[in-house]
Amino acid sequence: MKAIAVLADGNEPVVIEKPRPEPAAGEALVRTLRVGVDGTDHEVIAGGHGDTPADDDHIVLGHEAVGVVEDPNDTPFEAGDVVVPTVRRPPNGANEYFARGEPDMAPDGEYHERGIVGAHGFMAEYFTSPAEFLVEIPPSLAEWGFLVEPASITEKAVENAFASRSAFHWEPESALVLGNGALGLLTLAMLDPTFERTYCLGRRERPDPTVDVIESLGATYVNSNETGVPSVPDAHEPMDLVFEATGHAPHAFESIEALAPNGVSALLGVSGDRTLELDAGRLHRELVLHNKALVGNVNSRYEHFEAAADSLAGLSRAFLSDLVTGVHALDAFEAAFVDDDTTIKTAVEFDTYEKR
Amino acid sequence: MKAIAVLADGNEPVVIEKPRPEPAAGEALVRTLRVGVDGTDHEVIAGGHGDTPADDDHIVLGHEAVGVVEDPNDTPFEAGDVVVPTVRRPPNGANEYFARGEPDMAPDGEYHERGIVGAHGFMAEYFTSPAEFLVEIPPSLAEWGFLVEPASITEKAVENAFASRSAFHWEPESALVLGNGALGLLTLAMLDPTFERTYCLGRRERPDPTVDVIESLGATYVNSNETGVPSVPDAHEPMDLVFEATGHAPHAFESIEALAPNGVSALLGVSGDRTLELDAGRLHRELVLHNKALVGNVNSRYEHFEAAADSLAGLSRAFLSDLVTGVHALDAFEAAFVDDDTTIKTAVEFDTYEKR
Repeated sequence: MKAIAVLADGNEPVVIEKPRPEPAAGEALVRTLRVGVDGTDHEVIAGGHGDTPADDDHIVLGHEAVGVVEDPNDTPFEAGDVVVPTVRRPPNGANEYFARGEPDMAPDGEYHERGIVGAHGFMAEYFTSPAEFLVEIPPSLAEWGFLVEPASITEKAVENAFASRSAFHWEPESALVLGNGALGLLTLAMLDPTFERTYCLGRRERPDPTVDVIESLGATYVNSNETGVPSVPDAHEPMDLVFEATGHAPHAFESIEALAPNGVSALLGVSGDRTLELDAGRLHRELVLHNKALVGNVNSRYEHFEAAADSLAGLSRAFLSDLVTGVHALDAFEAAFVDDDTTIKTAVEFDTYEKR
Repeated sequence: MKAIAVLADGNEPVVIEKPRPEPAAGEALVRTLRVGVDGTDHEVIAGGHGDTPADDDHIVLGHEAVGVVEDPNDTPFEAGDVVVPTVRRPPNGANEYFARGEPDMAPDGEYHERGIVGAHGFMAEYFTSPAEFLVEIPPSLAEWGFLVEPASITEKAVENAFASRSAFHWEPESALVLGNGALGLLTLAMLDPTFERTYCLGRRERPDPTVDVIESLGATYVNSNETGVPSVPDAHEPMDLVFEATGHAPHAFESIEALAPNGVSALLGVSGDRTLELDAGRLHRELVLHNKALVGNVNSRYEHFEAAADSLAGLSRAFLSDLVTGVHALDAFEAAFVDDDTTIKTAVEFDTYEKR
C-alpha cells in the first residue's frame, strides 16, 4: 500500500510503498478516508519535533485521521463503521495513564504519538489500531471526521478552563481566540454556542479568507497590527475566556491583561524558546487580585474525541466548507502541504466513504 | 471605646477613642477578643494599600478578628457565641457577588474590605456586623480564632487549585510553599494531611525560628539562597502543588519550572510592579506540554472560613504556639506591629474569652 512519510534524513513528505498492516489480536484494520494536515506535521517534516520510530528509517505522517473499519478482527466494531483514531499509544505495554484512559496526562517517555513521536501515523491506505483507541463517529461525519482530532484538543482545553472556574459561580459571556489558523477558527465556531460574544485575533489584513470566516460566524475580527492583546479590553471588552492557539509566547502572558476578573486563559499553542521583558509584577498582581488563571493543555483523550464529534455535528456545513480549503487526492498530496494565505485547512484523501 | 487606627495623614498605628457602635437591624454587637496583624496591615499603615472610609479621617485597622457576641440584637446568634467576621462588605447595598455569597469574586469597586479598603476594621473593643458576615466557631478555638481569616485564604486557594485539576485524575503527593512568613507556615501545616511530602522555601539562614517550625512539621526547608525555585526539581523533586505566598513576582513565573507534569501553582502573594526578563517561550511551552496551571486567588468567602475553622481545629497546639510569637495587650499594642527575625505571627488582645 501507499503511505506518505518523511525519511529520517529527509525534509519533505514522500509517497512510499509499505506492506498493508495485519491487525494483531485486539486490533482492527481500518481503511483510511482522509487525514488532515496541521502545524505539527510541518514541524515533523522540518525535523523540529517528534522522532522516527525506533528501528525504522522513516515516519509515516498524519495524526488527524478518519477511516472505515475494513476488518473488525473480533473487536467490537463492524465492517463499515466510521472511526477516528486517538493519537497516543503506550510505548512499553501499558502504564497508569493509559490504564485509566488519560494518555493525554502522561509525562514525557510514557507515550508515543502516532505520526509525531516514535510511532507511524495514519497517512496510509490502511492502518491498524487497538479497538480501544478507535472512536466511532456517525457516517454523516465521515467527510469531516479528520477534524475530530483537532476539535478534541479544544474540547479538552475548554473542559480544563471551565474546571478551573468550577469552585465559584462563573457565567462567561465573552471569548477571545488568539490565532486565526485552522484550530483557532474551529475553536471559534465551537465556542459560539456557549458565549454571547466571540472575538478572534490574527495579523492578517483584509481581504483575507480567515477574516471572512470569522465574520460569517458573527464573531469580531481583532487585527493584532492595530490592537495588541493587552489593548483588547479597551478596544473591545475584557474577556472571560482567552484561548491561545498561536504558540506565540508573548500572547500567553499578555492574555492575563486581556482577561476580565475571574477569567481564564486556555493555553494550547506550543512556543519555542523566547526571552521577553515582561512587567511580571503587574501580571502576577493581576492574576492574584482578580482571581485569574492560566491553564496549559496538550493532547486529548477518548471522551474528548466523543465530545468533539458531537460538537462537529452541530457546526454548519457552510462553515466547514469554508474552513477546509483543500482536500487533495493521494496523487496530488503535495498540495495538502502548501501553506499560503489562501490555505486554511487541508487534508489528503485516500478513499471516500461512499465508494463501497 | 478604644480602637487602633491610622490617621489619614499618619503612618503609624495609634489608639483613638470612638463611640461604641450600635448594632443596626440585622447586625450583632461583638466584643473583640484578638485581632491578628499581617503584611496587609503594614501596607495600610504605610499608605501603600487601601483607602480610609469616605467622610472619615482615619481607618480602624484589623481584618483578622475573633470575638464574642455581646448583643445578638435579634440575629440568630446567642450572647457568648464565638464568631469570626468575614472581611468584604458591599459598598452600595447588595450586588450580585454578595447576593450569591461570593464577595471574594467581586471586581474592583464592588466591595469594601474592613480594615483595608473603605471600611473600618476590627481593632476596637467592640464591632458590629451583619449576622450573615459572622462565622461561628467552637469556643475551644477562641484563642486561635484570629487565624481563621488567613487560613480561609489558603482554603480558597487550595480549593481553586484542586478544581483546576478536577477534569482528570490527580493524586498530588508533593507540595512546596514559597514563603516562610506566617501565612506560608500556616499553609504548610494545613497541607500536611493531604500531601505525602511538603517543602517550604525561604531566604533565612539557620538558626531561625521559622526553620524550626518547618522542621517540627516534618517538612523540608529549602533555603532560596542555595536553591532557587527553578532548581527545586533537581535538588528535591518536582512539585504537584506550589503555593506562592511571598508576592515576589519572579516566584510566580519560576514556579512553572518547579512543578511536576499536571501540577498547579496557587498564587496568593501580591506583587508590586517589577519588570523581569523571562524565558517566556520555555515557560509557555512548559505550561502547555505538561498540562500545568497558574491560578490566582484573592480573599475568601463564608464557606472558606468554615473550612478554615475545621482545619485549625486539627492543627496541633504546639504548632500554633510556635506560630504565634506574640499576643499583646491593647496598652502594649505597638509590640504587635514589630516585624523582626524572631516575629512570626502577632495579635492584639482586647479581651479574653474566659473572662466573663
